[in-house]
Amino acid sequence: MTETASHGPLTGLRVLEIGHFVAAPFCTRVLGDLGADIIKIEPPAGDPVRQWGAQIDGNSLWWSIHGRNKRSVTVNLKAPGASDLVLALAARCDAVVENFRPGQLERLGLGDAIMRSARPDLVIAHISGYGQDGPYRDRAAFGVIGEAIGGLRYLTDHEPGTTDLPPVRVGVSIGDSLAGLYAAFGIVSAVWQRDRAAGDGKGRTMDVALSEAVLSMTEGMLPEYAALGKVRQPTGSRIPTAAPSSAYPCSDGKWILIAANSEPLFARLSRLIGRPELPQEQRFANNRMRVANVVELDELIGSWTRSLPVDQIERKLNDADIPSTRVYSAAECAADPQFRHRGMVREVDDRLFGKVLHLGIVPHVPDDPGKIRWAGPAVGEHTDEVLSDILGMQPAEIAAMRREGVI
Amino acid sequence: MTETASHGPLTGLRVLEIGHFVAAPFCTRVLGDLGADIIKIEPPAGDPVRQWGAQIDGNSLWWSIHGRNKRSVTVNLKAPGASDLVLALAARCDAVVENFRPGQLERLGLGDAIMRSARPDLVIAHISGYGQDGPYRDRAAFGVIGEAIGGLRYLTDHEPGTTDLPPVRVGVSIGDSLAGLYAAFGIVSAVWQRDRAAGDGKGRTMDVALSEAVLSMTEGMLPEYAALGKVRQPTGSRIPTAAPSSAYPCSDGKWILIAANSEPLFARLSRLIGRPELPQEQRFANNRMRVANVVELDELIGSWTRSLPVDQIERKLNDADIPSTRVYSAAECAADPQFRHRGMVREVDDRLFGKVLHLGIVPHVPDDPGKIRWAGPAVGEHTDEVLSDILGMQPAEIAAMRREGVI
Repeated sequence: MTETASHGPLTGLRVLEIGHFVAAPFCTRVLGDLGADIIKIEPPAGDPVRQWGAQIDGNSLWWSIHGRNKRSVTVNLKAPGASDLVLALAARCDAVVENFRPGQLERLGLGDAIMRSARPDLVIAHISGYGQDGPYRDRAAFGVIGEAIGGLRYLTDHEPGTTDLPPVRVGVSIGDSLAGLYAAFGIVSAVWQRDRAAGDGKGRTMDVALSEAVLSMTEGMLPEYAALGKVRQPTGSRIPTAAPSSAYPCSDGKWILIAANSEPLFARLSRLIGRPELPQEQRFANNRMRVANVVELDELIGSWTRSLPVDQIERKLNDADIPSTRVYSAAECAADPQFRHRGMVREVDDRLFGKVLHLGIVPHVPDDPGKIRWAGPAVGEHTDEVLSDILGMQPAEIAAMRREGVI
Repeated sequence: MTETASHGPLTGLRVLEIGHFVAAPFCTRVLGDLGADIIKIEPPAGDPVRQWGAQIDGNSLWWSIHGRNKRSVTVNLKAPGASDLVLALAARCDAVVENFRPGQLERLGLGDAIMRSARPDLVIAHISGYGQDGPYRDRAAFGVIGEAIGGLRYLTDHEPGTTDLPPVRVGVSIGDSLAGLYAAFGIVSAVWQRDRAAGDGKGRTMDVALSEAVLSMTEGMLPEYAALGKVRQPTGSRIPTAAPSSAYPCSDGKWILIAANSEPLFARLSRLIGRPELPQEQRFANNRMRVANVVELDELIGSWTRSLPVDQIERKLNDADIPSTRVYSAAECAADPQFRHRGMVREVDDRLFGKVLHLGIVPHVPDDPGKIRWAGPAVGEHTDEVLSDILGMQPAEIAAMRREGVI
């Protein structure tokens, strides 16, 4: 594939994915969004994500996004000769990312040392539940468990004593996606050091653990515990240190998020809800007092929001210039004028579904935007192209490998 | 500062932060963790995060982590001559990251064009609530609002009809941190393309929106809605497509997370809870049936977990090799042997607090680990050092700038 034009800052970077499910494919999705050439090694049965979530005729819509910009190459990793094929591809890639269980690629003849014998300066990113060493190395990696070990599940809950319901899952595979994003960051960091003029030319290894990617988000939780014995607690819909800031119910059952935790904003909100005297009352006189009396305060705000449907509440808050929004479901995300303006919600052609609504590219690079070159491909759609263009294989050789069950 | 040894793959990269609060400082934290030299422009009053969360003598413990590896340079951006000083620093940096309101830096004489006149190939990352253009550009950016617009708040809730309580916040500033991480990924991508031998030498601009960073995590939510009219719903503690996978209550009030959503795992769990016949019952015969009857199933599992304290439940599940964990609070994260083994939880020297417990570095780079060189510095701790070493200013010049209130 000759690159004739830039399609993002990673144009010219080639990455081999030996992955499945969420984390490694999320890593290559964000790399591909910024222009990298992604070669995805896929078993003949395909990545299981092709059947995850809502489907049309057995094809998942998620895959349209998750597989976009990738070239799918079918390889049966257990077939004799398969590892040679993968090594030949790795030799022509800048980086490899994988998320098998620690040690599994090594057992398939694709350990780090062997891959580096194919290309000494290869960057290798491993993604796993708990890391490539240590006492938990061999534990099965489930996203929800890594999130709980990383401390996030505990914090995603109502205040202690509020309910008997369990703490909730974030609602998306946040731990897997975080691990994938950190892996992408690590890969690009490593190729920068390798490829720059003053760099060292070395291939580095990244060892990304899902539980660690999650723990890295926990702000001051660890030092506050160690120094003060303070176990950080969930605060439900609120922010622990500012009030009012919460989600409030409207008369039509929708939720409105209001963040009026500064003096001028709280004064405006108080007037809007017909209680202009509140900022003068001692219990709400400043942020500290409002946090201390937040249950009363939220009840007053909630009794106003419950009196009207979300459309009207939202309009009144906007007119008063109070930071707020209805809580967006998929419907509101899809229709949002800002997302549409910025291409963050956009139509994409998909070979299976026609026009499909995709989320856009992050980060937005106005002078060199990445591109959604194609939606999730068919299993093995690019096998012949990649083997021919990158490895220079002849049709007869490719046919032979196919007969032997390697591809 | 002469670099004598590598302290991570970004050793040799210099980044100027003109930021505050969470997003831009999180970006530079992850860059600094991998070895970048971070110069943080800070107002004389300091970044407000220095007072956020639990404190000792007015100093936040969070700052110890949030400010680590950064050189703090005090600049009063509104003083005459301040923009010249910042431009002189920018000219000696690879990248700048900022998270003021869109347009604010331009009003301070630090717009993109002016910064590029100081260094034409400068990489610039802007982080904001909704992006640098479009109808929401000038809205105040509150993390919780961006998270709600990005679709995450809606999904972080119990199943519809379960409770009148509002959807919960993730419990950390997930939107800000995601935006910061995407900005770090974008910056490193841009410097790779700029600095590699076959690169184009150009400085690129990154325009990262918090709401977009969040929406990028929503998997198949958008195409499922657009193609099928399916509005993705929250599923509380469960996973929508697999069962059993949830948090279950133990007799001591702690929660245990169990992921036994495969046939062998479910068979083992059924034996463990004394109901070995369950896999033979039609209602639980396969994953699809278990998902359809998940309320009954979770009640059976919960009646077992409620009979014993979490220590015993956890041991029994481990002995049966069933993926599970207690839901970790700060206390369990701090003590976890895997985190300790991997340096993901480690003691760090802090000038204010002595030994402080930090979270470690992600990604882990075994052959070139980043380093926590120092904990969060004092405001302006490195002003003289940076002005002298990087700009070559003499003590008399520095003293004059200090008298004039620039630094």
